[in-house]
Amino acid sequence: MHQKLILVTNDDGYQAQGIQVLADSMRKLGKVIIVAPDAARSGAACSITPATAVRVSRISDDVYACSGTPVDCVKIALEKLLPRTPDLVVSGINHGDNASVSIHYSGTMGAVFEACMKGVSAIGYSLRTNKKQCDFSPYVQVVEQWAERVLSEPLREGVCLNINFPETQCLKGSMLCRMAKGAWHTEWLDAGTDSQGCRLFTLTGTFCNLEPEATDTDLYALEHSMASVTPVDIDMTSRESLSEPGLNL
Amino acid sequence: MHQKLILVTNDDGYQAQGIQVLADSMRKLGKVIIVAPDAARSGAACSITPATAVRVSRISDDVYACSGTPVDCVKIALEKLLPRTPDLVVSGINHGDNASVSIHYSGTMGAVFEACMKGVSAIGYSLRTNKKQCDFSPYVQVVEQWAERVLSEPLREGVCLNINFPETQCLKGSMLCRMAKGAWHTEWLDAGTDSQGCRLFTLTGTFCNLEPEATDTDLYALEHSMASVTPVDIDMTSRESLSEPGLNL
Repeated sequence: MHQKLILVTNDDGYQAQGIQVLADSMRKLGKVIIVAPDAARSGAACSITPATAVRVSRISDDVYACSGTPVDCVKIALEKLLPRTPDLVVSGINHGDNASVSIHYSGTMGAVFEACMKGVSAIGYSLRTNKKQCDFSPYVQVVEQWAERVLSEPLREGVCLNINFPETQCLKGSMLCRMAKGAWHTEWLDAGTDSQGCRLFTLTGTFCNLEPEATDTDLYALEHSMASVTPVDIDMTSRESLSEPGLNL
Repeated sequence: MHQKLILVTNDDGYQAQGIQVLADSMRKLGKVIIVAPDAARSGAACSITPATAVRVSRISDDVYACSGTPVDCVKIALEKLLPRTPDLVVSGINHGDNASVSIHYSGTMGAVFEACMKGVSAIGYSLRTNKKQCDFSPYVQVVEQWAERVLSEPLREGVCLNINFPETQCLKGSMLCRMAKGAWHTEWLDAGTDSQGCRLFTLTGTFCNLEPEATDTDLYALEHSMASVTPVDIDMTSRESLSEPGLNL
């Protein structure tokens, strides 16, 4: 059997602590190539760079830094940099969780969606933390277990995994769960006006779990010291709405 | 009954032709406020601006231009600019379609997702075209019909609409449909090297319908001169995978 090929990426940049931990962990499972942004791209979602050229710097034999978004990194890696289609794409470990609706803004998960759209098994890993320097050691075993599992039993077509960790020294295992309903509010700080008199605002925000009673959600897992493992579908069609009489034509 | 309040946005910028057509059409249904990017933000997806201040210029009484992404526009409009929660958010009309997996890269749909996440009914409209100047007149009636319908019967919670038009003078109605499986390939043009010897690539790409036989997809609708109307779910959980034995813990 040939050695597995694993693409490692993120949205915090190739020098972030989380991607180093993730790459080290993946090296136990196969040959690792890192293609990641040259600096932080938090909140990049699935954005792409349509108007300007994207630059790729070869940092070392197996590490490339890219001036584009996380999605650009995966697209360039698959088409231009890797010797063959990888067996797995992993993204993270993000500094900050991507549970509930935060998945939509996440560059970490953008990279995962891109791999999934290209038919490659993919997992995103994120840690619920505000710290720049984190202790990732409590999570490394679970990171590796899920990667190993997906390498041996590929995910359903069009499905990828969003795995989030709570900040804890005592992780109580993983929980398979759905995305919780949640919402960000109070998102803008007034930042005065510029020289032309235009108003300025800075993005911030408070997150609210809209289903605090539910016990089957990613937020429940995180609040109970478990890793949340959410299978995510690239096909966003609302099947329930398709069969609803209200929408019929 | 009070007058309806409608937020109009897009990803091509507040001066784009498509948003003018959309705003004019919405003015028949209620009070319109435009909050849109100050320039084109194609491919912005659900990206946000976490690191720098976002600037808002008041162009006229009911038009604001914003230096952020389409999602930023909706967030700022809802929290800072509108007198109350709008009855509807519409985005577009995009110059270029957002059918199949292209929905994931779309700033037009990013704005729609953001409104949906905030509990506001939302519709994205896009036209399959490469032209900067388009004739939107064949679509205006359908644009208005769907907006009117959603204003009178709000969508299911967490569901929004992705409506795409084919380029045709003879639109044969609308078709309720699912997202087709599709993929972009051959996405990068070599653009030489920069002064430091780093490789440069420019994003392009060819789209391929992976289900050319299917008759219930958005791509089928577009290829048969119909508007595709796809209900889209903000909750991306793969319910089928949740109940699959393979993923159980």
